[in-house]
Amino acid sequence: MKTIPGLSLVNEDLALVESKMREAPHENIEPLATALDVILSSGGKRLRPALALLTSHFYHPPGDKVISLAAAVEMLHTATLVHDDLIDNALLRRGNPTLNAVWSPGATILTGDFLFAWAANLAAQTENVRVMNIFAQTLMVICSGELRQLFRRSWREQTREDYDRRIYAKTASLFAAATESAAVLVGALKPEVQALRDYGQQLGMAFQIVDDVLDFVGSPKEMGKPVGSDMRQGIVTLPTLHYLEQHPDDELLAQIFEGRQADNPIIEAAVTRIRQAGAVETAMDEARAYVKRAQAALTSFPANGIRQVMLDLADFVVQRRT
Amino acid sequence: MKTIPGLSLVNEDLALVESKMREAPHENIEPLATALDVILSSGGKRLRPALALLTSHFYHPPGDKVISLAAAVEMLHTATLVHDDLIDNALLRRGNPTLNAVWSPGATILTGDFLFAWAANLAAQTENVRVMNIFAQTLMVICSGELRQLFRRSWREQTREDYDRRIYAKTASLFAAATESAAVLVGALKPEVQALRDYGQQLGMAFQIVDDVLDFVGSPKEMGKPVGSDMRQGIVTLPTLHYLEQHPDDELLAQIFEGRQADNPIIEAAVTRIRQAGAVETAMDEARAYVKRAQAALTSFPANGIRQVMLDLADFVVQRRT
Repeated sequence: MKTIPGLSLVNEDLALVESKMREAPHENIEPLATALDVILSSGGKRLRPALALLTSHFYHPPGDKVISLAAAVEMLHTATLVHDDLIDNALLRRGNPTLNAVWSPGATILTGDFLFAWAANLAAQTENVRVMNIFAQTLMVICSGELRQLFRRSWREQTREDYDRRIYAKTASLFAAATESAAVLVGALKPEVQALRDYGQQLGMAFQIVDDVLDFVGSPKEMGKPVGSDMRQGIVTLPTLHYLEQHPDDELLAQIFEGRQADNPIIEAAVTRIRQAGAVETAMDEARAYVKRAQAALTSFPANGIRQVMLDLADFVVQRRT
Repeated sequence: MKTIPGLSLVNEDLALVESKMREAPHENIEPLATALDVILSSGGKRLRPALALLTSHFYHPPGDKVISLAAAVEMLHTATLVHDDLIDNALLRRGNPTLNAVWSPGATILTGDFLFAWAANLAAQTENVRVMNIFAQTLMVICSGELRQLFRRSWREQTREDYDRRIYAKTASLFAAATESAAVLVGALKPEVQALRDYGQQLGMAFQIVDDVLDFVGSPKEMGKPVGSDMRQGIVTLPTLHYLEQHPDDELLAQIFEGRQADNPIIEAAVTRIRQAGAVETAMDEARAYVKRAQAALTSFPANGIRQVMLDLADFVVQRRT
């Protein structure tokens, strides 16, 4: 687990979240127990549960139900990754072999389903109808976003609206669900719930834009995947959108997105071209604007240490290199 | 949708359940809308929602929440079938092409996930924490049952206990969840909830045994699949278990289960052998015993028309030919 500055505040809570996730009842199915261990040990930044925990701290330290919620959110995220990696035929995630790299498609699908089920159980442990509703609705948003992406229009017809909707579905919806649900659980008032949801959502939009930018500028070693992965998969992200606005007739990109070329040197040339055109910086400006909106959502909250961590966390999202 | 005798009582409710299932927000993703239509139009007997509806009728006609629950149960079942067919590479279900027969694995996985999400939303519409808990737990039981099946021990080591656990996970758990949840929603007393759950569970066990038996004696045309499908996939069901108890050294079965033979004539010869040994009749005796237990669970309920339909339904389960 990588450390994010300022998050030491919730380190102990995060350890409880890890334990909670590991309570998954594998029922002595040995390969499942092993897979769960591998999946959970190679976990990422745990940003989503951290958002739920920080939200709780505004009111009181996280109780059992917030811990369950935080675990549910991260487990839902993990479940979607298991299926995504299989669908994308991704063999590495965070430098480790994916489940589909070592298991049959069937075993991978069922393990993903099992993780969805475990996420639903963790959400149910909150014993809060509204939270369970948010949770179920977020799952719908994520799944329909992925289907929309799969059945997307041709690369030339992709609009900024398509992009915004996609990154909301893919990332911001779950960030928003994490903060909103935690706010509901601790009994926050309606405008506070809305403000905290807003913080999560804007932060999630920024996070995903940066993720997409890192596919152009990140270090392949640190990222655990080569540059231009999205382009290789035919996915138009924000830097590409900005570049295409300026260079609608670029022949190199046409070759790539129409599936005529996908060799590494071609992809790298396109990545360089987009970077040199300043499209990455324009995208980062937008990410920073989302961060400002996330921070603005917290204006009415007390200017205490918790708020400072949440403001810093937003800054970190656009400064990160992985 | 096939008609089951006596179920005309819930025909109108079932029409509401169908409409409710079709409310799935496909958000103008055209291929998803089409897939949902195909999946729902080729629906099966709707036995699981019927169980929830009948349970409600013991107390009062189903309200919106029971309709949502019934739809949630059937949608969960449908979602598992979408993934199962992909994993088993089954190209036909109820005589119609499966989703994986016409779509990519990725699209099929995501559509299954979308249906799980929709099922969770429908369960959330009951606004009942206990029902949502039952729902989430049942999903866990189903998923871990499938994983256990995938990572099963060698065919010779399969025990009766393995079989019972498998058919509980695969079928009886959801039947039990349907009746239990409906009982909870209508405010049944604790012993009544338990009795109704018990009815659903015993009925589910009988139903799955009969399903497994039909793989030996059913008409391929009516079933929409060839005989011996389970054996072909290396799955040991009750008739095979009974046969192996009497003929542990059968060479034909050894050839099939060890993957040395899977040609149609070999499978058919094995099916005939198991049938002629009386193993199918022994399995049917056990299914009938489960039916008796299901019926006994209703003893303390008023001897009204609803109870009669539920008793008849149990008898139907062991009389059906498809």
